[in-house]
Amino acid sequence: MHKNFKNIDKIVYGNGAFNQMDEIIEPIRKENNNFFVFVVDKYFEGKELADRIPNRDEDTLIFIDIDVKEPYTEQIDDLRDSILKQKGLPSGIVGIGGGSIMDIAKATALMFTNEGSSTLYQGLDLIKKPGIYHLGVPTISGTGAECSMTAVLSGPEKKLGLKCEWTVFNQVILDPNLTATVPTDQWFYTGMDCYIHCIESQSGIYYNPYSKAYGDQAVALCREVFVDEGHGQSKENDEKLMIASLFGGLSLTYSEVGACHAFSYGLAVVKGMRHGYANCIAFNHLEHFYGDAVNEFRNMLKIHNITLPQNLSANWSDEEIMEMSQIAYNLTHMWNHAIGEDWKEKWTLEDIAGYYRKM
Amino acid sequence: MHKNFKNIDKIVYGNGAFNQMDEIIEPIRKENNNFFVFVVDKYFEGKELADRIPNRDEDTLIFIDIDVKEPYTEQIDDLRDSILKQKGLPSGIVGIGGGSIMDIAKATALMFTNEGSSTLYQGLDLIKKPGIYHLGVPTISGTGAECSMTAVLSGPEKKLGLKCEWTVFNQVILDPNLTATVPTDQWFYTGMDCYIHCIESQSGIYYNPYSKAYGDQAVALCREVFVDEGHGQSKENDEKLMIASLFGGLSLTYSEVGACHAFSYGLAVVKGMRHGYANCIAFNHLEHFYGDAVNEFRNMLKIHNITLPQNLSANWSDEEIMEMSQIAYNLTHMWNHAIGEDWKEKWTLEDIAGYYRKM
Repeated sequence: MHKNFKNIDKIVYGNGAFNQMDEIIEPIRKENNNFFVFVVDKYFEGKELADRIPNRDEDTLIFIDIDVKEPYTEQIDDLRDSILKQKGLPSGIVGIGGGSIMDIAKATALMFTNEGSSTLYQGLDLIKKPGIYHLGVPTISGTGAECSMTAVLSGPEKKLGLKCEWTVFNQVILDPNLTATVPTDQWFYTGMDCYIHCIESQSGIYYNPYSKAYGDQAVALCREVFVDEGHGQSKENDEKLMIASLFGGLSLTYSEVGACHAFSYGLAVVKGMRHGYANCIAFNHLEHFYGDAVNEFRNMLKIHNITLPQNLSANWSDEEIMEMSQIAYNLTHMWNHAIGEDWKEKWTLEDIAGYYRKM
Repeated sequence: MHKNFKNIDKIVYGNGAFNQMDEIIEPIRKENNNFFVFVVDKYFEGKELADRIPNRDEDTLIFIDIDVKEPYTEQIDDLRDSILKQKGLPSGIVGIGGGSIMDIAKATALMFTNEGSSTLYQGLDLIKKPGIYHLGVPTISGTGAECSMTAVLSGPEKKLGLKCEWTVFNQVILDPNLTATVPTDQWFYTGMDCYIHCIESQSGIYYNPYSKAYGDQAVALCREVFVDEGHGQSKENDEKLMIASLFGGLSLTYSEVGACHAFSYGLAVVKGMRHGYANCIAFNHLEHFYGDAVNEFRNMLKIHNITLPQNLSANWSDEEIMEMSQIAYNLTHMWNHAIGEDWKEKWTLEDIAGYYRKM
């Protein structure tokens, strides 16, 4: 059985494409209770972009501080409940921000029409009904959240996505201009999320020519942005990295992420590390899985003067390390891909803990 | 304004994916009058693939000889009328074959729900209503018809597509195994359709980084299939060429085809030339537009021992040449892309005729 992959319904790409949003959502405003919800990274509050959001009097505009915490189940449930109580079912929801905001928009779109807590739906195909119309506008490149079938949420028990074909956006607006003001460290860590998606997708049993075509192109674009002459943040590279992010996301969607994301999830849940950063912390120690790509990654660190902290684990308790390890160990689908379906014969909780102790 | 591109809803890719069709269309069988129409290239009649089509007693299975003529408006109208009269509105239509069969499936899906002759809808966004569910299964790689917004039809007055977002397939099954028995000359000409899509898309004003990412990857795959060590028809290259075809199609959809396709349409309408072959005849004379790519194309001809006929125009009347030229000239959007929006100041009917006289 091959994956039957659900695409984003519609994509508009180009500098200034953000300005087409009003026209794009106009026909959708007829649906449900005739209002839109905009969830926007708090970073943009008071900034020029916030003034360009086509929200109307009847709409709900919410700025969310994603630096406090990655998207979590209670947050989604509360957002859904308060909007339903105040205004009923929206016509659609728009997410403007990075991967966390994308995931909030995707998850909330689904939870508007699926009863109970979002913790009930963390996993594959547990969602019962299609959500409302949802539109994503990434303002940073690399996460792949703009195209993935997953809205990753941290719950009381696990960090795991609401994963089904209805999670995929109805519309994505890819406007590279929006990424022009991303701080350099975030630009790097989030860009590396894309690079790592491609490396992980190619390093495992679910890799296939379809996934490869997207991954190869995304890696080529990452090299232009992060390694080759002309590297760094620029208009041209913003354009490329936004496409690399999409292609990397499509590569992993048609294959699978692997060991690095498993380690990264443990770091996120137990130590609250941001996703892109946690990926970098983990990837730096994963030559065993990713060989030369780790050297290429270190070269990119060097080129961009990024210093990753060493010996973090010196400040982690054994309990914390075992908690992270258990979280990583439970991500069966990632180890299936990275090691093979018999991974439990080759790979133990203690192996995972050993890697965390090196970080 | 940037294009808001409609994706294929769902794609399944992989050797043997054809066998998933029955399960994929099962839920759709509840729609309309509970039967499917399968339009299949006559080449497969009596062959093993025909036995694997999941048609049921209530379905309509039609083999179409696309060698007689490229898809034409009257054919689509007749097909639609006879099915509606006999059985009413189908649940969906499945096309199994090359670009012509894809276009027949796409066009008929739309015409089931749009009244009158398909000649009324040749052009951009003239279709009034979404069509029925339509699923495409390419059995040859290169046309890009599996992903395009266009169902190209020849009518009494013009060769022009039904072009709108509803033309795009609801589902595509990409099974490289199905292309294993394609005769070498067709494999080459249709593969070149893909290569030419990429070159045309990059040679004009609508080119952009999104289109480039798809086009670059498709060209890289074409080189692996047609030029590099290990070139030729093989399992591995069939897998690659099927993705190249998709990516080339996506590259041109987000950009535009150009001069070669304009010339090719003239050859198709007036001389009945098949599309991939007509492209090759034209492309071979278009250094002015495509520079070194024409040399690369000639190298591929040489590698695969393909000899294109010379001096075809010696057997064409002046009337025929002027008719072709007029057809090519009328494809405004292609010349806009290839030459610029002021193309009429730089490029005349007589210039076009001059190129045809060299073929």
